[in-house]
Amino acid sequence: MAIERIAILGTGLLGTSVGLALRESGFKGSITGWDRDPKQLQIALERGAVSESAVDALLAAKHADLIVLSGPVFAIVGWMEQLSSALRPGQLMTDVGSTKRKIAVAADRWYNQAGHAGFLPGHPMAGKEVSGAANGEAALFKDAVWLFTPAKGEMDTRAAATAAEWREWVAKFGCRIMDIEAARHDELCAWVSHLPQMVSTALAALLEDKFGDAEDMRAIGGRALREMTRLGCSPFSMWRDIAHTNADEIGTAIHALEQRLTHLREHLKTAELREEFERANQFRLCPPRPSPPEKV
Amino acid sequence: MAIERIAILGTGLLGTSVGLALRESGFKGSITGWDRDPKQLQIALERGAVSESAVDALLAAKHADLIVLSGPVFAIVGWMEQLSSALRPGQLMTDVGSTKRKIAVAADRWYNQAGHAGFLPGHPMAGKEVSGAANGEAALFKDAVWLFTPAKGEMDTRAAATAAEWREWVAKFGCRIMDIEAARHDELCAWVSHLPQMVSTALAALLEDKFGDAEDMRAIGGRALREMTRLGCSPFSMWRDIAHTNADEIGTAIHALEQRLTHLREHLKTAELREEFERANQFRLCPPRPSPPEKV
Repeated sequence: MAIERIAILGTGLLGTSVGLALRESGFKGSITGWDRDPKQLQIALERGAVSESAVDALLAAKHADLIVLSGPVFAIVGWMEQLSSALRPGQLMTDVGSTKRKIAVAADRWYNQAGHAGFLPGHPMAGKEVSGAANGEAALFKDAVWLFTPAKGEMDTRAAATAAEWREWVAKFGCRIMDIEAARHDELCAWVSHLPQMVSTALAALLEDKFGDAEDMRAIGGRALREMTRLGCSPFSMWRDIAHTNADEIGTAIHALEQRLTHLREHLKTAELREEFERANQFRLCPPRPSPPEKV
Repeated sequence: MAIERIAILGTGLLGTSVGLALRESGFKGSITGWDRDPKQLQIALERGAVSESAVDALLAAKHADLIVLSGPVFAIVGWMEQLSSALRPGQLMTDVGSTKRKIAVAADRWYNQAGHAGFLPGHPMAGKEVSGAANGEAALFKDAVWLFTPAKGEMDTRAAATAAEWREWVAKFGCRIMDIEAARHDELCAWVSHLPQMVSTALAALLEDKFGDAEDMRAIGGRALREMTRLGCSPFSMWRDIAHTNADEIGTAIHALEQRLTHLREHLKTAELREEFERANQFRLCPPRPSPPEKV
C-alpha cells in the first residue's frame, strides 16, 4: 500500500467516520484533519479519527497523498477550486458529496489533466439523521454501497494507483463499490434518497404545524410514525446543497408523488386502492401472505 | 381475577399476539380460538396462543366471559351484529379494530343496554407490515399504547368488572392505556397512522412503476428508502376497511400533504426550504446540532 498521508477536510459525521473506518481497516499512515469548526476537529482527534489536527487546510492538503473532502456539495466544489492550483500531479482528491453532476464538472475543469492532481468523485450511501463528529462511526459504511462517478479526464499514473488503493480501503470498510455515471447517479438519488427525505420532512413539518405538542397525538404515534418522520431530523445545512444541485430531478420526483397521492386519495373506496397496495407489495418483495387473508 | 374463559375470533397477527401476551402475563384460564382460515388457527394452537380451537365461532363466543374480535373493521362489525342476539348480559366483547367510529355506532346499537352483553371498543397501536399467526408475538404490545373508546351506553355490573379486568391484562402486556373519544381517535389515526401508511404505499408503488427491478436502483437505495417503504408491505386486506371507514379524515390528511409537497417542490432553492426543515426538526424533537454546521 502506497498511501502514507491522508488529509480529511471536514471532520463532521462522514469525515470522522472515514477516519475511524480507515483505522479499523488497518491504515497505519498519518491522517490529518481539518474542520472550520475547531470543536468538531477536536472531537475527531480525541476519537482517533485523525492523528493530527491542521490549522491550515491548504497546507494539510499539500502534504497528503490523498485528500478526502467531506461536507455539503457547494463547500466541496469551493475547495476543489481553491486547492486546484496548490496541488501537484500525483496527488489524488476524492469526496463524499451527495450529488455528483456539479462535482464531475468541477473535476473535469480543474483536475485529471496534465499538470494537475487527480480527482475521483465518490458518494457512500450511508448517513444518519444526526450530524457531527461525535456521531461518526466506522460501522457507518458496513454493508453500504459506495458509488464512484469517475470523471472524463485522465489522471497520472500515481494518482491512478492511489485511486485504485482508495477503492481497496473502501472495500475494507465493508462497502460494495459501484461505478455509475454522474447524471444517472443524481437521477437515481433523487428518487431513492432525496424524495424519501423531502417526504419525511414535509410530513414532519405538516404534523408539527397541525398538532404541535398535542399530547394525545404524541402518545398515539407508534413505530410507523417514528420511522416515517425519522429523516425529518436531517440538518438543512446538508440538504440545502443537495436541493440546489439536484432541484430539477428532485422536483420531478416530488411532482410524481404528488400525483400518485392525489390518485390514491381519489380512490380510497375503490378497487384502485387494492392495485396501489399490490404494486407497493411488489416493490418491497414482501413475504407471502397467509391465504385466504386473515379475517374473523 | 374473574375471567376464566376467553374466545379470540380471528387468530391472525393480532389475535395470536393477544393470546400469547395473555399467557405470558399469567392468564391461566381457557383461550378458545377461531379463524375462518383453519391454517391460521392451527398455527395459533401450535404456538400456544389458544388452548382450544373452535369449529363454531358462535358456540365459542357463547361460552366465553370475554370475546376478543380481531380482524378488519367490517368483519368486526359483522360479528358484532351476528353475535349480539346470541350473547347474554354479563358477557363482555372487545375488539382490536383499527378505526373506531363505525364500531362505536355498532356498540351503541347492539350492546351496552338492558338485556345485552357489554362492548368495550379497543385499539392497540401496534402492528407489523407482515400478517398471520406465525408473525404474532407477545412482545408486540410492549411499550405500545392501547386505546379504548368506551361507548355511550351502560354495561351491567359483571361486564363492567370484566372490562376493568381486561384493562388490567392489557396493562400487563406492557401497554399504556388511554381512553379517547371515537371521533378523535379516527381523526388522530388518520394523521399519525393512516397518512404514513398511504404515503409509504404511494412511494413504493411509484418506485415500482418507475424502476421495477432496475438493479442500480435496488443497490443504491439505503436505510432511508427501506424505512420509508417498509409499510408498503402492509396487506390491503387490513387497509381496505380502514380506508373505507375513515376515508374523509384520511382524504383530508393526504390532501394537506400534497399541498405541503407542492410548496416544498416550488421552494427547493429558496429560504422556505430551510423553514420546512426546521419545522420538521421541531416535530422530531431532534438532538441539538454542532454549531456552526459541519462544513469544509
